[in-house]
Amino acid sequence: MTASPPPPAGTPSLPPPPAGTPSIPPPPAGAPSLPPAPLPPTTAATPPPAPSATAATAAPAAAPAVPRIPVAPFPATTPAAPAPRTPPPSPAAIPVPPVPTAPSLPAPSLTSAAPAPAASPRAVPRVPAPPPPVIAVPPPPAAAAPSPPAPRLPGPPSPARTARARRTGAVPGLRHRPAVPADPAKVAAVDHRLEEWARGLDLFPEEWTGDFAGFQFGRAVVLQHPGAADFERLVVAGKLLLAENLVDDCYCEDRGGSPRGLGGRLIMAQSAIDPYHGTPELEERWRCGMQADGPLRSYHWAMKDYAVFATPSQSDRFVHDIARLHLGYLAEAAWTETRHVPRVWEYLVMRQFNNFRPCLSIVDAVDGYELPEPVYARPEIQRVTALACNATTIVNDLYSFTKELANDPTHLNLPQVIAANEQCGLKAAYLKAVEIHNQIMEAFENEAAALSAASPLVERYARSLAAWVSGNHEWHATNTHRYHLPDYW
Amino acid sequence: MTASPPPPAGTPSLPPPPAGTPSIPPPPAGAPSLPPAPLPPTTAATPPPAPSATAATAAPAAAPAVPRIPVAPFPATTPAAPAPRTPPPSPAAIPVPPVPTAPSLPAPSLTSAAPAPAASPRAVPRVPAPPPPVIAVPPPPAAAAPSPPAPRLPGPPSPARTARARRTGAVPGLRHRPAVPADPAKVAAVDHRLEEWARGLDLFPEEWTGDFAGFQFGRAVVLQHPGAADFERLVVAGKLLLAENLVDDCYCEDRGGSPRGLGGRLIMAQSAIDPYHGTPELEERWRCGMQADGPLRSYHWAMKDYAVFATPSQSDRFVHDIARLHLGYLAEAAWTETRHVPRVWEYLVMRQFNNFRPCLSIVDAVDGYELPEPVYARPEIQRVTALACNATTIVNDLYSFTKELANDPTHLNLPQVIAANEQCGLKAAYLKAVEIHNQIMEAFENEAAALSAASPLVERYARSLAAWVSGNHEWHATNTHRYHLPDYW
Repeated sequence: MTASPPPPAGTPSLPPPPAGTPSIPPPPAGAPSLPPAPLPPTTAATPPPAPSATAATAAPAAAPAVPRIPVAPFPATTPAAPAPRTPPPSPAAIPVPPVPTAPSLPAPSLTSAAPAPAASPRAVPRVPAPPPPVIAVPPPPAAAAPSPPAPRLPGPPSPARTARARRTGAVPGLRHRPAVPADPAKVAAVDHRLEEWARGLDLFPEEWTGDFAGFQFGRAVVLQHPGAADFERLVVAGKLLLAENLVDDCYCEDRGGSPRGLGGRLIMAQSAIDPYHGTPELEERWRCGMQADGPLRSYHWAMKDYAVFATPSQSDRFVHDIARLHLGYLAEAAWTETRHVPRVWEYLVMRQFNNFRPCLSIVDAVDGYELPEPVYARPEIQRVTALACNATTIVNDLYSFTKELANDPTHLNLPQVIAANEQCGLKAAYLKAVEIHNQIMEAFENEAAALSAASPLVERYARSLAAWVSGNHEWHATNTHRYHLPDYW
Repeated sequence: MTASPPPPAGTPSLPPPPAGTPSIPPPPAGAPSLPPAPLPPTTAATPPPAPSATAATAAPAAAPAVPRIPVAPFPATTPAAPAPRTPPPSPAAIPVPPVPTAPSLPAPSLTSAAPAPAASPRAVPRVPAPPPPVIAVPPPPAAAAPSPPAPRLPGPPSPARTARARRTGAVPGLRHRPAVPADPAKVAAVDHRLEEWARGLDLFPEEWTGDFAGFQFGRAVVLQHPGAADFERLVVAGKLLLAENLVDDCYCEDRGGSPRGLGGRLIMAQSAIDPYHGTPELEERWRCGMQADGPLRSYHWAMKDYAVFATPSQSDRFVHDIARLHLGYLAEAAWTETRHVPRVWEYLVMRQFNNFRPCLSIVDAVDGYELPEPVYARPEIQRVTALACNATTIVNDLYSFTKELANDPTHLNLPQVIAANEQCGLKAAYLKAVEIHNQIMEAFENEAAALSAASPLVERYARSLAAWVSGNHEWHATNTHRYHLPDYW
C-alpha cells in the first residue's frame, strides 16, 4: 500500500461550465440516446401553496412553531459551511440558476396535477442549447514513488487508516459536480427544528443524540435541495431523511435490528405511511399501533407533514419508493442470513432498491413544483431517475467502504462484491467500482440532457435530481464523522 | 360439530337490483361519508388502442398467434360455466351494463393519461340515482337439530371434512353480489392461450399441469373481468395471475419456497417487472438473469404484454402493488420463522399487503379505459380501492381455511388469528371473520357509491372493482379443486 499525494482538497473534479448555463450538458450532437417524444411545456410547473399552519400542528406534541426564515434565493457566493478538516468548496462552484418564479397554485386538486394541454411536439419551446460543456474527469493522480511503509500493528492489513491518518475529501477520479455551498445559518435552523421534532415525538433516547448530530441531517438536506422553495420544505425533507435513518438503524442495523423477523417490522413501517383500511375498530387499533416506537412515529408524522405540500401523486410516488427501499433491506438481510455472495449485477439490482431513491423522489415537491405523474411514469423518465439514484447510491458504497469494513469485514458493498466475483484485490475492486459509478453518472447526465432539450419541465426535474446528486456527494465527501477514504492513492 | 342443511346452492346472498341499475348502491341519503370533491367527468375515459401484434411477438418462444375471439358484449343471459358439484348461478344475476363505446385512443402518450380539462365540480353530470337497492344479507340458516355424529378416525377433530362429505358453495351469511356468469367458450380459449404461453416459456414442469389446470385461471379472469374490452386483455390478465401464483408457489410456498432467503429471491422477482438501469454490460447481465427460471420469465413477459395496452401510469401502479405484495409475503414469512402470532389488526395490516390488490390494479386497463393517476392517487380513491381489495382478500382466508389448516395447522389466516387472540374456538372465530369481511365489504360499497355519485369515471372504476370482487367470490365458491367449507353450519 503506497500513498500518493492527494489532489488539492476541494477541487471539483469537473470544471464548472460557464456561469449561467444549465448544469446538465446538452446531448451529444445529433445523437440523442432516446427517441424524441412530446413532453409538456414548462407552464405546467407551478409551485404548490405554502404549507399551512396545520403542517406544524398535525403531529402530537409537535415542537412550538419556529419563526420562518425568510426565503431568499440561494446566492452562488454564499460562504461554504464550515466542514471540519476540509477547506470550503471552491468559490468557482457553478451557480444554480434561480428557480423561476411562477404563479401560485391553488390547493392540491385534480387539475393541479394535470399536465398542461398538450402542444404539438414540435411546438414545445426548446431551451436554448448551452455551449458544449467541457466534461473531463481528471485522471487519478499518477502513482507516486512508493513511500516507506508505515509501522503496522500485527494482524491483517486493513484499508481503513488509523484515526490519525484518516483521509477525507472527494474520492480521486470520481465523476461529480460541485454542490451549491450550504448556508450555515440555514443548516443550523434546520437542525434546530429537527431536534425539537425528535424530542417532541420522543424518537430516540438521549444518548443517541451525538450520533444523530454527527449525521448532519440539516447540512445534508440543505446541500441536497439548493432550490428548495421554502424553509418549511427543507425541514420536512430533513424529517423524512431522519425517519429513514431511524427505521434502518433500529429495524435493520446495529440499534436493535437484525435480519431475523425483519419482514414483520418493515411491514408495520410501510403501513405507517400507507394506511390500513378496514372496520372503524381495527383502524383505531392500527392508529394506536403506529405510535408504538420511534421509527413508526417518525415515518408516520413526517409523511403527514410531507402530504401537506406534496400532491397525492407525489405522496404515492414516495410510498412506492419506500416500498422499494424496504424490499432492498429485506434482500440484503436475506443474503446476510444465507451468506450469499451475489454476482455484481445481482448486488446492483438489490442496490437499486436499497437506494437513496426516496430522497430523490421528493425533489420536485421540495423545489415547489410537480413533475406530473404521467410524465414521471414514462419509461425514459423512470430511467434517468434510476440512473441518478444508482449513481448517488454507489457514492455511498465508496465513501462508507472503510466504515463498513471496519464494523463487519463481510459487509456487502460494491468493492467487496467485485473483489469476491473477480478474484481481485480490494483496491482494484474499489477502482473498478469508481469506474462503474462514473459510467452510470455519465449515462444519467447524457440522457437527462437529451430529454431536457425537449421539455423545460423535464429540464427542471433533471436539474433538481442533479442538484441532489451533487449535494449528496458533497455531504459524503465532507462528513468526517462518518466517512474516511481507504488508503488507495 | 353439527351439520345443518346448506342454503340452496348458488343462491346469491344479495338480491339483484332491478335490471339496468348500476351494481353499486347509492350513498345513504344525505350522508356521504366523504366530503364532496371535484372529480373528472367521464369524457376522460377512452379505451386504449387494441394491442398490436407486437404483444404476441415480444416474448421469445411465444406461442403462435391464436385467432382472436370476436369481441361481443357479455350477454346477461349467457349460460353459466359448468362448475363441478355446484348448480349454475341463478339466472337472476344482475346484468352488467355494457361498457360504453368510446372513440379510439391514440397510442399511449402524455395526453392520453391527462384528465380532461377540469369542469366546475358542480357541472359534472351526475349519474341518475338508482332506486334504493335492497341490501339484505340473509342470516345464516338456523341451526338444525344435531345430526348423528359421523364415524371418526382417531386423532384431533378437524374442521376439514372428509373428501366424501366436502361442502362447497358460498359461505353462509357472507355479504356478496352475484357474478356475471362465465362464458365457457371464452374460458376455454383463455386457458388454451395460457397453456401455450406457459409451454412456450417453459414456465413449470409437465407434472404440475394438473394443479395449474385445477386453479382454473381462465375461469378466474373471465369471472373477474366481465367488462374486459377484448379477448387479448383477458389473456394478459390471465398471464399476470399465473405469474403471481408461480412466484408465490415457487419462491414462498410448497414448490421449493421457504422463508429462508426469500428476500433475495423476491428482489429478483420485483426486478423482473421494475428494470435495472446501469451500464450496458450490467444491464445485459440483468436481462439474461431475468430468464433464469419460470417465476422470473413469467413476471417479465407478462409485464411486457401488459405494458402494450396499459399506460405508463397503469404499469407503474401495478409495479407498486407487486412491491406491496412482496412486502406482504416477506412479513408472513418472517412471522412464520419467528412463530409470531400477530394481533388481529397486525394480521390484517399484513394482509392488506399480501393481498389480491395487483389483480384489482389492472381492472381499468383490462376494461379498456384509464382512471387517471391524479384521480387514482387521491386518498378517498385509495381508500375504496383498499377496502375492495381487503374484502376480497378476506374471502380468500375464509374459503382456503380448511385447505390451509389441513396442510399446516399453524398457518396464519384470519379465523386462526382471531381464535388465538380472543381465546375462542375456531368456529366462533370463523363467524367473526365473516362479520369483519361483511363490514369491510359494506364500507366499500357505501363509500364507492358516494364517490361514484360525483363522477361517472369513478363510478365506472368502482363498477370494475365491484365486478372483480364478485367474480373472485364466485371463483372461490365454485373451485372445488381447491376449496371446501368447514363444518360450521
